[in-house]
Amino acid sequence: MSFNTYIQDNKKRFLDELFDLIKIPSVSAVNEHNNDIRTAADFLLNQFNKLGLDNCEICETKGHPIVYAEKIIDKDLPTVLVYGHYDVQPVDPIELWDSAPFNPVIKKTDIHPEGAIFARGSCDDKGQMFMHLKAIEVLNNNGGLPCNVKLMIEGEEEIGSDNLELFVKENKEKLDCDIIIVSDTGMINKTTPSITVGLRGLAYLEVELTGPNRDLHSGLYGGSVANPINSLAKMISSLHDENHIVTIPGFYDNVIEYSESQRQHDSNVPFDLNEFKDSLKISDVQGEISYTTNERRSIRPCLDVNGIWGGYTEEGSKTVIPSKAFAKISMRLVSNQNWKEVSKLFTDYMKNITPKGMKIKINEHHGGQPYLNSTNSKAYKAASQAYTKVFDKEPFAVKDGGSIPIIAQFEKELGVKTILMGFGLDSDAIHSPNEHFGLSNFYNGIETIANFYKLYSE
Amino acid sequence: MSFNTYIQDNKKRFLDELFDLIKIPSVSAVNEHNNDIRTAADFLLNQFNKLGLDNCEICETKGHPIVYAEKIIDKDLPTVLVYGHYDVQPVDPIELWDSAPFNPVIKKTDIHPEGAIFARGSCDDKGQMFMHLKAIEVLNNNGGLPCNVKLMIEGEEEIGSDNLELFVKENKEKLDCDIIIVSDTGMINKTTPSITVGLRGLAYLEVELTGPNRDLHSGLYGGSVANPINSLAKMISSLHDENHIVTIPGFYDNVIEYSESQRQHDSNVPFDLNEFKDSLKISDVQGEISYTTNERRSIRPCLDVNGIWGGYTEEGSKTVIPSKAFAKISMRLVSNQNWKEVSKLFTDYMKNITPKGMKIKINEHHGGQPYLNSTNSKAYKAASQAYTKVFDKEPFAVKDGGSIPIIAQFEKELGVKTILMGFGLDSDAIHSPNEHFGLSNFYNGIETIANFYKLYSE
Repeated sequence: MSFNTYIQDNKKRFLDELFDLIKIPSVSAVNEHNNDIRTAADFLLNQFNKLGLDNCEICETKGHPIVYAEKIIDKDLPTVLVYGHYDVQPVDPIELWDSAPFNPVIKKTDIHPEGAIFARGSCDDKGQMFMHLKAIEVLNNNGGLPCNVKLMIEGEEEIGSDNLELFVKENKEKLDCDIIIVSDTGMINKTTPSITVGLRGLAYLEVELTGPNRDLHSGLYGGSVANPINSLAKMISSLHDENHIVTIPGFYDNVIEYSESQRQHDSNVPFDLNEFKDSLKISDVQGEISYTTNERRSIRPCLDVNGIWGGYTEEGSKTVIPSKAFAKISMRLVSNQNWKEVSKLFTDYMKNITPKGMKIKINEHHGGQPYLNSTNSKAYKAASQAYTKVFDKEPFAVKDGGSIPIIAQFEKELGVKTILMGFGLDSDAIHSPNEHFGLSNFYNGIETIANFYKLYSE
Repeated sequence: MSFNTYIQDNKKRFLDELFDLIKIPSVSAVNEHNNDIRTAADFLLNQFNKLGLDNCEICETKGHPIVYAEKIIDKDLPTVLVYGHYDVQPVDPIELWDSAPFNPVIKKTDIHPEGAIFARGSCDDKGQMFMHLKAIEVLNNNGGLPCNVKLMIEGEEEIGSDNLELFVKENKEKLDCDIIIVSDTGMINKTTPSITVGLRGLAYLEVELTGPNRDLHSGLYGGSVANPINSLAKMISSLHDENHIVTIPGFYDNVIEYSESQRQHDSNVPFDLNEFKDSLKISDVQGEISYTTNERRSIRPCLDVNGIWGGYTEEGSKTVIPSKAFAKISMRLVSNQNWKEVSKLFTDYMKNITPKGMKIKINEHHGGQPYLNSTNSKAYKAASQAYTKVFDKEPFAVKDGGSIPIIAQFEKELGVKTILMGFGLDSDAIHSPNEHFGLSNFYNGIETIANFYKLYSE
């Protein structure tokens, strides 16, 4: 039986199983979901056992657990380590969802005429991670696994993978492998596959600016006391210059500058600026001068405020000068920036521009290093061939704007590169309301992954 | 019996009655308190009836009701109209209150060694407004009212008095009077009385800035799309220059510039900058260049962000570029700025500096004109003598930074000036957690008001 036939014969069940996983609201950032995190881990453990894997276990950490399993069929064969995550982003703003975030529904869209799964985690990363479990099932039923496999699925990817980092450090032998495969990225569009060879790093910090020791009446004090919101706005504003270049001293010091010919080559990756703008309903883009939109979100670092709050934010009006104002600010980094160094540069600069008479507190939330891979390895070539077989088109090698901090960490600790075989689309609205994942992306992904194992083991 | 003796004999009951009023959480800005607003109005109606006033009634409006009563003892005597409000500010941030905001408790403080009432509304304005009811009781029991009195207590002062404005327009005959008395301001300190002769106006607007049509993953899009929070911060930042001067074109056009001699005279009002800074635990003040702290918060207009929000503001981190960012922004105005004109200048300027590709929506919350009074009137002199009698010190005439938008409206509609006989202190934390009102301020206020009636009618 071909892989495709097996998938077609079992597609309804594959989907039902994925729905069961998606229905568990395993939001890692919010403590009240801790039990759901546990339920999701148990669900995976059960799936691993059903697949006939060995040493299936829930590995406790200081935070959310890691679910592990392996199948060593022959020590002389190569070993593939699969990494994914079962935790998901928070759902807010909940009012913008058209259907309940943890009640998956199939809806047709222009991009996914065959239907897409609408739910938090449908694409990032439950849908994509679950393809690996089903690919193993496909192989089990079509000649068996052609190589050894290890699976390590964590529950803290959306909050920085701190405990996975420690787990990897402490379990180097257990995790010994020849290549790591991850499906937590995207492809160019429905019919144009791509393999991600670059990831941006991340430095995420929270700023608390304090002025007066209490909230003040804006009439009695307005004009005479520094207002933490106005001051924080000014500080944020001074993080970019008029060319949208980050002004933090030293910020660009270690950034790889690409040659004109490399930039020319990368510009072959299909991209339609008008389509991009239309998809976001914006009349114009904005970003670092002298770079294209695609470069700005892949080979260039950036700084964004991810959240801001202070003062009266409820219904109606309140005439207050607040004591404090807050912002969550993150920077996406590229090779060879170091997130610890950049966090320090940010912190020093913010302290430096804090207005006289105010106090600032800056906390690091989390971070990760950027990652770069080449297209010359045996594993990359096998992945490329697997995509070509299923999509009938050779995948582009692309540099991605997102971060998977643990990928650089894998390389550092295990000395192993990762192939990022993603099947999501930019339009899938991951991290946003109405996240979804195309049905054909899901099934094609399973088939591509199964083919990768076969080609990589040949 | 002297006024003072009567007050001393009844002080416990006066306080109990005030506590009953304070316990009603009549927050006008939040719809869920609409029933409490009604309860507070009923409470006042009952008090008016007990005082033997005539025509006691709850006057319905499109919003919260106005409670009215009057006592016309002789049409040839002058008529005093008392205005106050029974609504209060919201209580948030609730976690910063040391006691429940609507459960008044007496606590001693350095400034109020005799004790102060800690509760939302204790000073602004239930405590101060209630002094007028008790002053009438004092007069009733000590020779009777020496002139006619009308009371008009509204429930929407903290949200802009829109319906009171209409009520005044439509009831000019009913409200016909010779002078208006309001206690909703402060005095310089516990032993230094003052009468407010200037109030700042207010223009309060809400800004919504929209970028992409949905929240975006900050990795996939960061650096390539304008972030509404960063952009709003930049816009807010550009509302002031480096000298803390508001940059909105035309903003200062109608501002009265005071002569050096007038500024010199006003600088006699006691003010200790170090005490001011210490009370706010700030190491420095900030404001418009070339003006003193007291001038910055009285005779100069200003602009403050009262609230800001956008993106992820909960526990933990979320890597999002939000679709929208919001701010509540208000300007305090001085004579002869017009709040409608200034609101338009603000709106035009904000639209003008909105980055290409983004959409802005600006809503007016409410506003009010600034107010100026002279010290030469019969009523001002009577008030000044009343303070002198009780405090043994002549009150200063001061210009206040706060706004009571209806005061300018009274003058416009009724052609009558208002005497602002305030008894609160700057340190009373009105609009803030732990609002309080000194017991002696409360009792001295009652006595001063009773004396005013007597002196004004002589």
